[in-house]
Amino acid sequence: MTSTSDEVSGWWTTGITRVAPGEILLRGYPVQQLIGNVSFAEQIWLMLRGELPTAAQLRLLEAALVSGVDHGPQAPSIAAARMAATCGVGLNSAIATGAGLLGDVHGGAGQQCMELLTGIATADDADAAARELVAAYRAERRHVPGFGHRLHHPRDPRRDPLIGLVTETVEAGDVPPGPLRAGLALETALAEGRGKPVPMNVDGATAIVYASLGFPPELGRGLFVLSRSVGILAHAWEEMSGGRRIKGPLPKGMNAAYNGPPPRDLDR
Amino acid sequence: MTSTSDEVSGWWTTGITRVAPGEILLRGYPVQQLIGNVSFAEQIWLMLRGELPTAAQLRLLEAALVSGVDHGPQAPSIAAARMAATCGVGLNSAIATGAGLLGDVHGGAGQQCMELLTGIATADDADAAARELVAAYRAERRHVPGFGHRLHHPRDPRRDPLIGLVTETVEAGDVPPGPLRAGLALETALAEGRGKPVPMNVDGATAIVYASLGFPPELGRGLFVLSRSVGILAHAWEEMSGGRRIKGPLPKGMNAAYNGPPPRDLDR
Amino acid sequence: MTSTSDEVSGWWTTGITRVAPGEILLRGYPVQQLIGNVSFAEQIWLMLRGELPTAAQLRLLEAALVSGVDHGPQAPSIAAARMAATCGVGLNSAIATGAGLLGDVHGGAGQQCMELLTGIATADDADAAARELVAAYRAERRHVPGFGHRLHHPRDPRRDPLIGLVTETVEAGDVPPGPLRAGLALETALAEGRGKPVPMNVDGATAIVYASLGFPPELGRGLFVLSRSVGILAHAWEEMSGGRRIKGPLPKGMNAAYNGPPPRDLDR
Amino acid sequence: MTSTSDEVSGWWTTGITRVAPGEILLRGYPVQQLIGNVSFAEQIWLMLRGELPTAAQLRLLEAALVSGVDHGPQAPSIAAARMAATCGVGLNSAIATGAGLLGDVHGGAGQQCMELLTGIATADDADAAARELVAAYRAERRHVPGFGHRLHHPRDPRRDPLIGLVTETVEAGDVPPGPLRAGLALETALAEGRGKPVPMNVDGATAIVYASLGFPPELGRGLFVLSRSVGILAHAWEEMSGGRRIKGPLPKGMNAAYNGPPPRDLDR
Repeated sequence: MTSTSDEVSGWWTTGITRVAPGEILLRGYPVQQLIGNVSFAEQIWLMLRGELPTAAQLRLLEAALVSGVDHGPQAPSIAAARMAATCGVGLNSAIATGAGLLGDVHGGAGQQCMELLTGIATADDADAAARELVAAYRAERRHVPGFGHRLHHPRDPRRDPLIGLVTETVEAGDVPPGPLRAGLALETALAEGRGKPVPMNVDGATAIVYASLGFPPELGRGLFVLSRSVGILAHAWEEMSGGRRIKGPLPKGMNAAYNGPPPRDLDR
Repeated sequence: MTSTSDEVSGWWTTGITRVAPGEILLRGYPVQQLIGNVSFAEQIWLMLRGELPTAAQLRLLEAALVSGVDHGPQAPSIAAARMAATCGVGLNSAIATGAGLLGDVHGGAGQQCMELLTGIATADDADAAARELVAAYRAERRHVPGFGHRLHHPRDPRRDPLIGLVTETVEAGDVPPGPLRAGLALETALAEGRGKPVPMNVDGATAIVYASLGFPPELGRGLFVLSRSVGILAHAWEEMSGGRRIKGPLPKGMNAAYNGPPPRDLDR
Repeated sequence: MTSTSDEVSGWWTTGITRVAPGEILLRGYPVQQLIGNVSFAEQIWLMLRGELPTAAQLRLLEAALVSGVDHGPQAPSIAAARMAATCGVGLNSAIATGAGLLGDVHGGAGQQCMELLTGIATADDADAAARELVAAYRAERRHVPGFGHRLHHPRDPRRDPLIGLVTETVEAGDVPPGPLRAGLALETALAEGRGKPVPMNVDGATAIVYASLGFPPELGRGLFVLSRSVGILAHAWEEMSGGRRIKGPLPKGMNAAYNGPPPRDLDR
Repeated sequence: MTSTSDEVSGWWTTGITRVAPGEILLRGYPVQQLIGNVSFAEQIWLMLRGELPTAAQLRLLEAALVSGVDHGPQAPSIAAARMAATCGVGLNSAIATGAGLLGDVHGGAGQQCMELLTGIATADDADAAARELVAAYRAERRHVPGFGHRLHHPRDPRRDPLIGLVTETVEAGDVPPGPLRAGLALETALAEGRGKPVPMNVDGATAIVYASLGFPPELGRGLFVLSRSVGILAHAWEEMSGGRRIKGPLPKGMNAAYNGPPPRDLDR
């Protein structure tokens, strides 16, 4: 029992929020000044970055957040949240269920793509770096995160509007050009020597947006989770409103197939 | 095995999103038209309600979402997410941890308040209904959800700007007056016969906003979870950036007190 | 900043475990004495109750824990955990996903049944109390929790062995007779005036076990969650071993049905 | 819509459980034969491995499961579950909260240690392989997972009973000797050239147990989660019984320290 109460208080130090009787400061701003004066997306930026965004930054952030909200109930994050909503838990638990599934494979492609973009953007020759990276991935038969889509052919409908916005913003000098150049170099390298191209998907396009805006890769995942939480909530609520109880993946009367041992008796 | 594949497909029916090769419709709108043209808050409304909000509705929604983002690491939702971020899980799991804690007690006051507001708003005499409700709660020594705050005296700094915005919007005829009237009637009834008033807190004020906007009570909770997820993410990231591993509630060297049985030997 | 470090330490007081350098006491017993000398089920009892169980108590606890481990991938808790296991999260997150779904509707019937059993067991006339309860539920068209099963006709295969064990233990005088009598009274009352009986299901039978053992209703749920976590883990691992990525509820090529608005253009 | 209902059923194929009206087979055994005849730990083994354990295997499994149940409320998994229990969620959610925190850093050391043990156990010269591994970790200033403890000096009280049991079982020829030899070789290598040894902790000792029993490393984590869920449940219930609401990490009246920007006005 060697700690003082100051050490305990210090154990929970934060630079984000200060709370005292009658006072809530968020990144230094009194909350009552923020309410009614900043948008939700500006508030997201403020909380994560410490300052308010420029108009150009905000526009890109809004676009990326809008693009990720939903991809339908075939996604496990959405399906799990819909099932949760029928099990007698609150919408908070349904959101937690869905958000929790956005792991390295289901929600991490954007984060992984941001890490690749950073490497390429800082190379002397982005095109060469992209070609090398694609060759290395192909040699290991791995997918380059952020490119290709098992459903959207010829291309993900979210790619063009996002890339269009980043291009405009780069050309206006409002964000640095490196991540966009890196992403396009990867897309070009992936198309070379292939019958059909492997165009950027929403993870790749939002990775370019978030990297252009200066977010670290981990926050790319974090922002995707915020965005997809909207779809998770909408679907959980749709399911909860329908009143079904204990919804499993298969309709009543359909069983999962079984490939285990045949019936046997316990030898006891 | 009596189901057809149509029944299976129908088991997962949704009215929110349609996904096909090259196409994502969100409430009927192609996603590529939404990106760059609607804000994140508009998209939230669209996903939950099916149509885009009016400017007046959007302004209230933004204000409520901004007001709930954070209340510091003393809140269990934030503390748990910060601890999660030191345990070797992704930010998705940290967000899930925090969101999951926004249950009936920690995150449900707004939802419960919305249910009360509806009852009062539809009464013939809102003031009388509010007084009766307060009397009933006092008789059972229960707190009226959405009113009072253990820390914020004399009042929660988020109350006035939210109520100010709702008042303006009601006066402009852009939202119905019932929820605001009900909330103020409750606040008045709670102040009567008391040495000190029990003013509305952020849960009560956002309950009025969400009820004025026509959201069902459950979605009041859902929207609060979306809002607080921003603070959860910011705090989880701050903690993760700090690099601490396996952060518990107490600093190193401080132990939890113990009031269990003294040491004893197993009789085997 | 008025708290002392003693108050902080006291804020986290526990009677379960004392940890110091080189020492871990669990309910007073040094952990090194427990390892190798008590079974896992005995340890569960010790942690929850503070003392070790008798042989008769242990036998019932083991039986109830064994009975609840799994009901196949059609259960949403299992399906969600299997999907989680394909999303790039650890088995800890997959278990959390499944356990989280065992809410009031999916995992709470046993807890609710225990509450009913307590009421009936303390009534002067258990049979009359059971009949009244059944009549009240029928009047409100509610299911009596712990009875009936949408799949298992004529009866849940877990009912008879559990009830057989409780009966033996009651007859030996090792547990009180009230919960068993209450449960059988409910089953009898539910069969009266019906073409087909509504026999006890696993939730009802384990409710009798846990109530006979003196667990509070909430812990009935808690023990069910521990039990089902075994199935959740087995299924999550089976799925993870299979190597599938981002498993949704429907196989590739099958889409969810859509009943939302037809495609429309954004008017901006 | 190209899938048939057989494909859908097949999408959810399992070898663990078969459910049909009146029938539940677990790994081929009718559940009614298992209830009352196998212990909970035997059932855990059966569900994960497909067959029942030998008496020697069971003894080791029980010991490992007993050893991991709790380490007090200073552990973030326990603290988060206790906080959850005060937020108005069910014990299922409290368990999910705690289990979810057992990630790569908080719950993954055993799994990582098992991977190391496998490598050393299959080397021609286990001692040399252990020394090389220790040298490599020290060169990168990394901790060898499963060894050392920030609190337990000179050694973790769970080490000796676990290693004693494995040694007996190896000597009886009931489990292969490789993992034990590898673990002891690592412990010896870690002690060389050090003022104080770095003895095996509970993660290392249980890693030896689980590897000796033939579990894959991922299931080492899974079994730890099952074990620790017992402590999580006990603590969550202790907290819930106490009736506190919205418990944060710090007692009332103690604030988190703040190191962010000073108060400032929004320029709008």
